[in-house]
Amino acid sequence: MRALVWDGTAARVIDRDPPSITAGMAVVEVRCAGICNTDLEITKGYMGFRGTLGHEFVGEVVDGPAAWRGRRVVGEINFACGRCSTCARGLGRHGRPPTVLGIAGADGALAERVAVPVANLHAVDDRVDDEEAVFTEPLAAAFAILEQVRVAPGTSALVFGDGKLGLLIAQVLHQAGARVLAVGKHEEKLALLRAQGIATELFRPVAPVDTGAVPPQGAWAGEPAELVVEATGTAEGFTRAVRATRPRGTLVLKSTVAGLSSVHLADLVVHEITVVGSRCGLFDPALRALEGRTVDVRSLVSARLPLERAEEALRAAAAPGALKVLVTR
Amino acid sequence: MRALVWDGTAARVIDRDPPSITAGMAVVEVRCAGICNTDLEITKGYMGFRGTLGHEFVGEVVDGPAAWRGRRVVGEINFACGRCSTCARGLGRHGRPPTVLGIAGADGALAERVAVPVANLHAVDDRVDDEEAVFTEPLAAAFAILEQVRVAPGTSALVFGDGKLGLLIAQVLHQAGARVLAVGKHEEKLALLRAQGIATELFRPVAPVDTGAVPPQGAWAGEPAELVVEATGTAEGFTRAVRATRPRGTLVLKSTVAGLSSVHLADLVVHEITVVGSRCGLFDPALRALEGRTVDVRSLVSARLPLERAEEALRAAAAPGALKVLVTR
Repeated sequence: MRALVWDGTAARVIDRDPPSITAGMAVVEVRCAGICNTDLEITKGYMGFRGTLGHEFVGEVVDGPAAWRGRRVVGEINFACGRCSTCARGLGRHGRPPTVLGIAGADGALAERVAVPVANLHAVDDRVDDEEAVFTEPLAAAFAILEQVRVAPGTSALVFGDGKLGLLIAQVLHQAGARVLAVGKHEEKLALLRAQGIATELFRPVAPVDTGAVPPQGAWAGEPAELVVEATGTAEGFTRAVRATRPRGTLVLKSTVAGLSSVHLADLVVHEITVVGSRCGLFDPALRALEGRTVDVRSLVSARLPLERAEEALRAAAAPGALKVLVTR
Repeated sequence: MRALVWDGTAARVIDRDPPSITAGMAVVEVRCAGICNTDLEITKGYMGFRGTLGHEFVGEVVDGPAAWRGRRVVGEINFACGRCSTCARGLGRHGRPPTVLGIAGADGALAERVAVPVANLHAVDDRVDDEEAVFTEPLAAAFAILEQVRVAPGTSALVFGDGKLGLLIAQVLHQAGARVLAVGKHEEKLALLRAQGIATELFRPVAPVDTGAVPPQGAWAGEPAELVVEATGTAEGFTRAVRATRPRGTLVLKSTVAGLSSVHLADLVVHEITVVGSRCGLFDPALRALEGRTVDVRSLVSARLPLERAEEALRAAAAPGALKVLVTR
């Protein structure tokens, strides 16, 4: 079969043996897969992964338990061992060492077929088409915030970053009843949120200062909020987000910035701020939102390319201003 | 009156005018005051404060509303303006700019008399003597953790640091029903906790590595806990504490380490750790604990000196291994 494989040097579409069935696993024929920033990070060395890329997918079960065969599915990306104390807490997605689809120790979904634990499968309702279903994984990551933080109606929420994840998070918090202000640097992306009735603002330009530091993406100088979500994917975003969080407020950290960041830890203590690291979420709320169309994901698709052109898809996803690039059959 | 005054260069016992009464304030004759690490930090430049030091005290109201005159009191240290939105949220202790007794914009309690807002006063029950009552403020800071984090009976809790605050925190969490392990570097301090039935462990020595970084205080390599409290007051403690927090666990940050720390923010996201900055707490639970003697504070007194010798008291508090140094009349 064809697959987009990262060999540590280049990501290339090559021929690989299709996955064969093993106990507890299902083989899924991929109908549509999405490219995530994490895929791009992997091609810069993140996680030291080698293998088939891709962890956002929808497909049809072609091998596995009879009850699943022929069904259209999406799949959670963290493979639980089912034996450790972390799994016993229902947090199999935090096992160590982690096995994560297309990220750590398991070939991914940017291929004709992918092997996924049966326990990770979720059937997709007919109301949700392939190009919506492929958003289940990133949308679940947005819903993870509601698992971790109490968001009451009327909560003031600031979302920093208008990338794919930021746009999903702003919508999820808006649906949960928060008073959301989304701050980003792309007028055309923020317009997608305004179409949903969400307030937006552009980062203010910052005069460049030659400090040798990472150039700031932009400033924000409004009122501090109860809930701030940092989803710009930049190292300097953390300090800005801390300053935008009001005393005893909560800052949700969605950006996995590699390497060390310089942080004024005393700011967290003096203003008694809670910082919540947030990564993956449960699929159920995401699937319900797609079924009910309470979150708009279709506007987030910026390109569609067939698997044979997946290398081009990866480049398109890395282009400035790109949103979701889908890889189809 | 005599007062221990920090002038930006030296802390000296000098003569000052006693505070006079103003609207909303009470004048308290100090019976006993404690020296806190924050006082020591101020003499290193923290907060840029100038004035009379000290924010832990018990005394008698000698001027102010008739209802308070003659009563033995302790006082919360943050002066609320009573007019801003932060005060309206009941978080007057987070006002900006902050006015904090003996720390920012208000003369402190290492003096014969101190002025405190009437709203900050709490009467002290006869069951609590002066040397216990003076612990109300630091004990409230320990109880702040229970305001901010849900601690269920059986919660596994690691407390790093066996300074005054660490010893109070370990006791408060133990009383709340957590399964506490306190880790520190002083066998004799940890013994105080073992006398309360709290498990303890010494940091393991770490072979010095010449990296130019701050030398590590010690290692800990046990099982990660649901709740970790960092109270070592050291910059390198944060990374150790993050590693000791299990996935989706909570790390309470009690150390106000000045300056920038280098932090792997991605660790917080990947393991979905919540970091809670925690500073001051409400006095009521602390006073109840002192009345009921559920927390041992008396063993934490390591020296008593009269106000005239407060400079010596400051040096004694800075000595390695020192616990609470009290300044008496």
